Amino acid sequence: MSVLIVGSTALDSIKTPTAENPRLLGGSASHAAVAASFFGPVKLVGVVGKDFPRRYIRLYKRHRIDLEGLQMLPGKTFHWSGEYELNMNNRRTLVTELGVFETFNPTLPEACRNAPFVLLANIAPALQHQVLNQMRRPRFVAADTMDLWLKVAMPDLLKLLKCLDAFVLNDSEAQQLTGEDNVFPALKKIHKLGPRYVVIKKGSHGSILSGPRGLFLCPAYPLRKVVDPTGAGDSFVGGMMGYLAAAKGPIDGHIRRAMTYGSVVASFCCEGFGLQRTTKISRAQIDGRVKELERLTRF
Amino acid sequence: MSVLIVGSTALDSIKTPTAENPRLLGGSASHAAVAASFFGPVKLVGVVGKDFPRRYIRLYKRHRIDLEGLQMLPGKTFHWSGEYELNMNNRRTLVTELGVFETFNPTLPEACRNAPFVLLANIAPALQHQVLNQMRRPRFVAADTMDLWLKVAMPDLLKLLKCLDAFVLNDSEAQQLTGEDNVFPALKKIHKLGPRYVVIKKGSHGSILSGPRGLFLCPAYPLRKVVDPTGAGDSFVGGMMGYLAAAKGPIDGHIRRAMTYGSVVASFCCEGFGLQRTTKISRAQIDGRVKELERLTRF
Repeated sequence: MSVLIVGSTALDSIKTPTAENPRLLGGSASHAAVAASFFGPVKLVGVVGKDFPRRYIRLYKRHRIDLEGLQMLPGKTFHWSGEYELNMNNRRTLVTELGVFETFNPTLPEACRNAPFVLLANIAPALQHQVLNQMRRPRFVAADTMDLWLKVAMPDLLKLLKCLDAFVLNDSEAQQLTGEDNVFPALKKIHKLGPRYVVIKKGSHGSILSGPRGLFLCPAYPLRKVVDPTGAGDSFVGGMMGYLAAAKGPIDGHIRRAMTYGSVVASFCCEGFGLQRTTKISRAQIDGRVKELERLTRF
Repeated sequence: MSVLIVGSTALDSIKTPTAENPRLLGGSASHAAVAASFFGPVKLVGVVGKDFPRRYIRLYKRHRIDLEGLQMLPGKTFHWSGEYELNMNNRRTLVTELGVFETFNPTLPEACRNAPFVLLANIAPALQHQVLNQMRRPRFVAADTMDLWLKVAMPDLLKLLKCLDAFVLNDSEAQQLTGEDNVFPALKKIHKLGPRYVVIKKGSHGSILSGPRGLFLCPAYPLRKVVDPTGAGDSFVGGMMGYLAAAKGPIDGHIRRAMTYGSVVASFCCEGFGLQRTTKISRAQIDGRVKELERLTRF
């Protein structure tokens, strides 16, 4: 089954202590869509400007990502620039140029409205909601978010949460949202806001699912070297939703494995700048790391 | 088989934002010995002053801990006082009164020298070495440490590392020791200092083993509420060594499960002040949480 992914489609200029990479393909939807594409058909909903490089359109197409929902408007593509510190955990935003994103008004082509799986990747919750409202009868809806929306768009986010099956956020955002230091009471509070499935991402420490069948502690793949963590969270949720959409049967029977797959795609994402590594891997390499994670966690 | 444990035997006065508990039984050897006692015979090596409460001797005895190696000297028992912040992650030492510990000169009774498993719980590495030198032919020797010794006794610690089978430390200490931000290259560097098994503790994020059979990612038991984390690391390594000493067959066949058992005993430790919770649990409760961890990590 296909997964519809809406989010940002951006050009990212990423600085680390050892390298500088201007205008890489980035944005939450780009990372999530490429991650999901390893498992089945993906439809991308987003907006780019006239300056969007043709090679990035070709990249999407190589991953068989359906671009009917990608608008191209007069103006500039959303541009984000950030700098990582040596330990790769702290990052600083240098530039945010919204460009055509400022007036983005997602209108879904007819063919997109029937997608059974919907991933509302990180953009303003009002836009996520606008996309969701255009869907017919999705089977499973998940959303990601970021600290910014908890600060400036909390009412929109709270409205959205009531309409989700799954909500994915990182540990510091969970604390920001609930006031709870400990992730387990935080998970409980987030369930009360709507979603039956809540996933808290903890970066290199893995992630935690709380769902109808209880908790799942999902491992992170051990990475000896992190080149650029930008988009790792988007890759995680994209891989998870791609795997779920491709799996047959009930969500509960697949979501743990889906998270593990998301975690592995995210590990590849961290091994290159932007999407440079993720776009070079194969499904077999992903399967290999999932098998390795099974061996690394068995006791 | 029995495990010999040397370390500090202390009185801990612990303050948290919500409670204050003076003169609890504490110290690395006390926590580790009680944790190990659930699995088999334990011999404790340490020193206390004349002020050491009789009820704590009775507590050790209830756990069938052999006290032939516990010296009682004129003077005061080692007293540590610390305060935790609201999130229970940051702690501040308020008072350290070494007392009889200042001149502690561990001399092992004959019966202690044959123990096949040796845990050098956290004390000065020179004292750990002094104990190790008195052992006949131990089958497996593990040591724990703390940031202080990396600062003030690095040459002693480096000497000790060459004589260990296993070294256990936390993530920030691993960074301090190796200069590596990422735990995986840090593990490699620590192997080069001697030990075949290196375990890095990551608190609520679990722990990582690197050994002859590669890596193991050990989960932490999900705790909704942490009352007092003092001694959790000691309980972890104590439980691990107690389980290993009781298991028959090669270390590699048991060390993953041993770590999981250590992790579970540490989770109980965090649920009460000092040893108050750990001393009230049963082996069946420990087995129960280990089974739960199996279910929580399967995918």
